Amino acid sequence: MKGNQYMLLPGPTYIPERVQRAMSRPMINHRGAAFRDMQEEILAGIKQVYRTEQNLLIYPSSGTGGLEAAVANFVAPGDKVLAVSIGVFGDRLAEIAETFGAQVQSIKVPWGQAVDPEEVGARLAEDRNHDIKAVLITHNETSTGVFNDLKGVRRAMGNHPALTIVDSVSGLAAADLRMDEWGLDAVVSGSQKAFSIPPGLSFLAFSERALAKHRTNPQPNFYWSVDFGMEYQAKGQTPFTPPISLYFGLQEALRMMLNEGLENVLARHDGYRRLVRNAVQAIGLNPLADAVSASPAVTSVWMPEGIAANELRQYLLNNFNVVVAGGQQSLDNKIIRIGHLGSVRELDLLAVIAALEIGLRQMGYPVELGRAVAAAQEQIFQGTGDRRQG
Amino acid sequence: MKGNQYMLLPGPTYIPERVQRAMSRPMINHRGAAFRDMQEEILAGIKQVYRTEQNLLIYPSSGTGGLEAAVANFVAPGDKVLAVSIGVFGDRLAEIAETFGAQVQSIKVPWGQAVDPEEVGARLAEDRNHDIKAVLITHNETSTGVFNDLKGVRRAMGNHPALTIVDSVSGLAAADLRMDEWGLDAVVSGSQKAFSIPPGLSFLAFSERALAKHRTNPQPNFYWSVDFGMEYQAKGQTPFTPPISLYFGLQEALRMMLNEGLENVLARHDGYRRLVRNAVQAIGLNPLADAVSASPAVTSVWMPEGIAANELRQYLLNNFNVVVAGGQQSLDNKIIRIGHLGSVRELDLLAVIAALEIGLRQMGYPVELGRAVAAAQEQIFQGTGDRRQG
Repeated sequence: MKGNQYMLLPGPTYIPERVQRAMSRPMINHRGAAFRDMQEEILAGIKQVYRTEQNLLIYPSSGTGGLEAAVANFVAPGDKVLAVSIGVFGDRLAEIAETFGAQVQSIKVPWGQAVDPEEVGARLAEDRNHDIKAVLITHNETSTGVFNDLKGVRRAMGNHPALTIVDSVSGLAAADLRMDEWGLDAVVSGSQKAFSIPPGLSFLAFSERALAKHRTNPQPNFYWSVDFGMEYQAKGQTPFTPPISLYFGLQEALRMMLNEGLENVLARHDGYRRLVRNAVQAIGLNPLADAVSASPAVTSVWMPEGIAANELRQYLLNNFNVVVAGGQQSLDNKIIRIGHLGSVRELDLLAVIAALEIGLRQMGYPVELGRAVAAAQEQIFQGTGDRRQG
Repeated sequence: MKGNQYMLLPGPTYIPERVQRAMSRPMINHRGAAFRDMQEEILAGIKQVYRTEQNLLIYPSSGTGGLEAAVANFVAPGDKVLAVSIGVFGDRLAEIAETFGAQVQSIKVPWGQAVDPEEVGARLAEDRNHDIKAVLITHNETSTGVFNDLKGVRRAMGNHPALTIVDSVSGLAAADLRMDEWGLDAVVSGSQKAFSIPPGLSFLAFSERALAKHRTNPQPNFYWSVDFGMEYQAKGQTPFTPPISLYFGLQEALRMMLNEGLENVLARHDGYRRLVRNAVQAIGLNPLADAVSASPAVTSVWMPEGIAANELRQYLLNNFNVVVAGGQQSLDNKIIRIGHLGSVRELDLLAVIAALEIGLRQMGYPVELGRAVAAAQEQIFQGTGDRRQG
């Protein structure tokens, strides 16, 4: 029998039982003391994950809502911005900025690669008059399984005064991010990724520099207004009714995450990355990303010549109740994407790799059954090993 | 012992066990067939509640997000709009329109009253050049416990071409609303009110006339764009990751609601309204609203001279774990608001009324204990009776 689904998407992710139970608690008054205390704990917890002591707001929205909030508050109509895109979500952030009147200059990197920090540095160095007001960049690009070296990019920006606005919706808590130490100005994340709770909340952390920009920004704002958010946060509330059940889940997920330790959470995701890469490489498949910029949240794998990715995905779903993601836009039907973020068990990854072997063989690709699984087993057997290994 | 909380807010509301269980189901792929089927069922169900066959989108947001979506899509910068406000939420809708560049003319009705439809009609009749592009109006005003006669207002508008944009966040499924029959153009609602699921989803239904307005509206839109929403809905998806657990809950809540029958749901809310009014009047308290426009979702009650509303609320919380709402702005500390929308048991209302009697007596107001309860019991005993009775 197929039983429960193996869902290995790059979000939404598996929801741990403890989080599920927390979300089943009865509603509380969102203008009362219990909510205030819960919000305080949650904000402190998320700030630890962001490694920031600056401002943080939670929006009732998808991750994209958090991105719109960052743009609407911190980019003024007419501002020149430099948008670094390495895939679908980088393009989306640029499109939001364009929608709200920014003059967008782009750095477009071929899909499957990260941006070279020096390229960003060079573009800003040319901008002697400081016309560029913000750099928009994706931390972890879900569509390709590549992450950008944010620390390197920020360092390459040097003393250029542009704000650094980061989409870390699928990156935070899977890949290292140090908002204050690296000097990032606005960082957006979401609940349905490494936080292991259902979709419906986005997070926006922002610096005093970003806030100063907001104060002079004529862009109209209501739902996304950081002023409303901060005004109500000071009272222990939110301006609009918060998704209370998701807050319950978030509180529990943060407790689990901080109890495990952030370093351990990051190491665990790095282990997933290596496990999946080693496994697919053992049967001759090629990951889309090279080892140095491969995402700890999702691994994209090229299908061999003659194998239709979407047909394979359908086979996995029909025969084993396994869900993995496909490619988007130009990568459609050419890659599969195996998500491994949040609360993933290594044994689930082994099981899905086993199913993948069977599926490939059924579709005519020569696989020695068990070979990819063995490569993954070997890694688990040897313990964490050298984290830098491809 | 105090045990579980009696939470009688005008939203969020009690979540039925069946809905809780549905929300605990594991995540599914929001780009897959199971989500598509669920969304189809949900959209059909909500449309039945709206009594519309027109367009409907679900946003991952608070109710206020749905209001912003209505304004951002259907009101152009510079448009003259007529905002009818009978309380805090009417003011909020006007403020959103102002934020996004509309020229707002207001009809402000004293708090506790509904608008006279003829007043709206008269204002539009004066507007011979049809400069007014939209009428913004609240269906049920949560801050006062008053509902507007939408049908009468729409009729009084006659053939004036202004769009009718309605905030029915706390009204829908508690008070009658017939979008198509009454000719409303955009109607916003939310999950945490009569739908009995946690906050986090808003609904926006809109007419072809509203859509035509959107087509020529230069207001920039991304997260709220009805184009994106409709484009993805045609594929059985949503443009941004949907709050899947809330969708599970909504599906279950709609099944319960449609199984009960919409007429019965409305009659039940009308019964709550009469029950609470009869009870408080039996001990000499005055509801803020008169019988004809008293909300079926929430009842506001004036405190007697010398009784501080917030002190009474604190007493009820401390001694009986009962949560009722207070007054907002000028009504703060002067009224309490007893919410009765969604899945409320009559016996819970009796219990809270009993606690209210005790609290009032403790605070020095002369109450013959049991009198308010008896009035409510009498109503239950006699069955539904005449629904028009105050």
